[in-house]
Amino acid sequence: MAIKPALPKGARDFLPAEMRERTYITEVISRIFERYGYQRIETPALERNQTLTGKYGEEGDRLIFKIAPRGQKLSSALQKVAEGQPEAWQQATEEALRYDLTVPFARFVVQHQQELTFPFKRYQIQPVWRADRPQKGRYREFTQCDADAVGSDSLLLDLELIAIYQEVFDELGLPVAIRLNHRKVLAGLGETLGLNEEELGHFTMALDKLDKIGLAGVQKELQERGLPETAARTLEELTALDGSSAEKIQGLLRLVGSSAIGQQGLQELNFLLEEARALDRHQSLQLDFTLARGLDYYTGTIMEVVPTEQALGSLGGGGRYDDLTSLFGKPGLSGIGISFGLDRIQLALREARLFPAIEAIGTRVLFAHFGQREALYCLNLAQALRQLGVPTEVYPEAVKLKKQLQYAQKKYIPYVVLIGEEELKEGRFTLKNMEQGQQEELSKIELLERFNPNAQTNHGKH
Amino acid sequence: MAIKPALPKGARDFLPAEMRERTYITEVISRIFERYGYQRIETPALERNQTLTGKYGEEGDRLIFKIAPRGQKLSSALQKVAEGQPEAWQQATEEALRYDLTVPFARFVVQHQQELTFPFKRYQIQPVWRADRPQKGRYREFTQCDADAVGSDSLLLDLELIAIYQEVFDELGLPVAIRLNHRKVLAGLGETLGLNEEELGHFTMALDKLDKIGLAGVQKELQERGLPETAARTLEELTALDGSSAEKIQGLLRLVGSSAIGQQGLQELNFLLEEARALDRHQSLQLDFTLARGLDYYTGTIMEVVPTEQALGSLGGGGRYDDLTSLFGKPGLSGIGISFGLDRIQLALREARLFPAIEAIGTRVLFAHFGQREALYCLNLAQALRQLGVPTEVYPEAVKLKKQLQYAQKKYIPYVVLIGEEELKEGRFTLKNMEQGQQEELSKIELLERFNPNAQTNHGKH
Repeated sequence: MAIKPALPKGARDFLPAEMRERTYITEVISRIFERYGYQRIETPALERNQTLTGKYGEEGDRLIFKIAPRGQKLSSALQKVAEGQPEAWQQATEEALRYDLTVPFARFVVQHQQELTFPFKRYQIQPVWRADRPQKGRYREFTQCDADAVGSDSLLLDLELIAIYQEVFDELGLPVAIRLNHRKVLAGLGETLGLNEEELGHFTMALDKLDKIGLAGVQKELQERGLPETAARTLEELTALDGSSAEKIQGLLRLVGSSAIGQQGLQELNFLLEEARALDRHQSLQLDFTLARGLDYYTGTIMEVVPTEQALGSLGGGGRYDDLTSLFGKPGLSGIGISFGLDRIQLALREARLFPAIEAIGTRVLFAHFGQREALYCLNLAQALRQLGVPTEVYPEAVKLKKQLQYAQKKYIPYVVLIGEEELKEGRFTLKNMEQGQQEELSKIELLERFNPNAQTNHGKH
Repeated sequence: MAIKPALPKGARDFLPAEMRERTYITEVISRIFERYGYQRIETPALERNQTLTGKYGEEGDRLIFKIAPRGQKLSSALQKVAEGQPEAWQQATEEALRYDLTVPFARFVVQHQQELTFPFKRYQIQPVWRADRPQKGRYREFTQCDADAVGSDSLLLDLELIAIYQEVFDELGLPVAIRLNHRKVLAGLGETLGLNEEELGHFTMALDKLDKIGLAGVQKELQERGLPETAARTLEELTALDGSSAEKIQGLLRLVGSSAIGQQGLQELNFLLEEARALDRHQSLQLDFTLARGLDYYTGTIMEVVPTEQALGSLGGGGRYDDLTSLFGKPGLSGIGISFGLDRIQLALREARLFPAIEAIGTRVLFAHFGQREALYCLNLAQALRQLGVPTEVYPEAVKLKKQLQYAQKKYIPYVVLIGEEELKEGRFTLKNMEQGQQEELSKIELLERFNPNAQTNHGKH
């Protein structure tokens, strides 16, 4: 009557090899966030239902995982349902799993505003849950890596987050484009086209699908939404814009010509491009006036990172907002945030074989032996290696050498130290290089020196 | 109509200062786990209901957070409840939040047995959820840090986990006692007292409360449970055992005299004590024959870590088990595991002021300035410092210097570089030491060298 070992739909286990990859990525991202003064925070998985409901649109609301009531509350809710009050169910449901990191962060900023130092720069790497239909590459529990700076509308922060994107992907070795646009440029286009706010929303959302449905698809959607014919023509001109950033900006100036808000957006983009160049953080930066980003709370700079040599979709995105926290009673707090897509970045690095070799980060040395006496004999030496920071294992059982070597192979351990009766008697150790196969006899001191990271300066070539 | 920013009962936010402390602890623990070849894994927060139900006793079952059904499943379940089938509710509930890391790990081992290398040594640092009544120091979401080695009954693994406990608390600087006992010793006592299995269970559970309710309390409970008078007397002798480990073992040999299983337990304890001494990993180790540990799946070594200079209760515990995975269809897989209590360790380190200074790990340098021109002027230098690995910020807005210095103070930033019109003109920088208050004028090169971690060898005293 054993229970079948299985997971719910859309949930994943991470085995050691996969965890190593994910930890490698999040460590690079955290280190760079911290180099810019972003501080790590965490919020709980469980939020109050009313904190989350209504923030993600109708579709989003349906995808929120809610916690079932328990004990007395459950029985009394079921009782009421049985008595013909189905709405009692809704009222008894108090908690839900967070759906993203942004809404909990907004709640956090308002709740702790007296304890925070503004401008507040935070990062957060935590799982979120969405009851989406699971499919290839889409899970119900996945990790988001967000950084936000709130409480300032200075463009230096936009510049800083662009630099962070550039540095992270440089350090990971992944060639990307950082696509850059500005919501005020889109607003300027709307103004020039005579669109009202709702129509501008339709225009932006349609534009957001350009990568998926192509120019004709977007134009069809604009028509269906009843937008003027000129919108479709402007869209065509947008996609045709070419040349250097300066040329693109000139081209767009013609399109948004007289719109003050459009001009302001272009000015800000120009500032960011110039300063990123001055900082040597511009290599991946590309103006893209067709970039829209789905979320409707963006009001300024918007950006998106895509790999240039892989067909994998976006690896991250973000943008500036005027008002993150008024929902929770604190209006007028502007800021900017970016996000990294851990799953996609992992796929991209794996595909491009950019992860560091396992041999360099897992266990380095395994002691293989022929019995308890030999095992005890090597414990001290194993301990000494660990003191040097060398991850070291002693095979715990007295089994055939072949099995111990297989263990080393499967765990990608590059060195095995063999200890048999002979070695024990003579106080020597046989060091086997698992990749090249050769063996050599070493004394305890020679062995320790071989793995001492500081030994080079004392006994090496210098 | 703003939503009140608040959290559900028993949930916590972690602000930057607290996250720094927690990250410091988990990094020490992970580093030492990895030094011994333990590999990190993660399991999802959501498990199937049937994986968790029935594993934690009746009380535990009530504390499991269950996920409410959604959409069609929810309406049809509520419909059935309304039609007088309240059990339809239970059937529709499919997922739950993990309650500990052990049961998901057992599920993981069986599910992925073909992909794992045995003996499999893993560690896992993740939150768990329990719908306990929240109280001081007890939360509904808290982090567990577990390491287990499964697939071997070698005592070398018990020894290894004792060494890990010793090393972690040595590195944290926290004086602790590692209390050590053996379930076979308790079984031997039971045999000598003529207890059946159920009575041995009562004896063990009563013993587990010794710290809380005292000797008289435990004796009263033994009496109430109908255990023989001799059990209470044996208990008294147990608590009176004194002297060196060898003397304690001699004392216990008298008590379990003729029980083979009791003798085996004592032999194993003796082995662990001797080998830990040979490894110089015995300083905190203390035999304690009154240690019982609550969980009933332990069958061998059991241990618990308590601070010696603080009244804080246990900082961790663990033990050996014969059979972790038969529930999921794989019998006979033995192993040993230990756990660290992150919240308690954080409290202990804070109380003993053992955390590294914030100044050493947060942002090191803030550039304060008097306007956009000055800010842009220092961006390159800030970037150069970051390249050296120095966490650096540029204050994003042109506000009064006082406000910028306050920002540095609140974030415990130890150095501020001031850039005014004067500095800009002369190409120099004023470096202010925030703790000591003194200022000095430096060139760009001097400033970079001041913060270059490698500069000492080139230009320092050596």
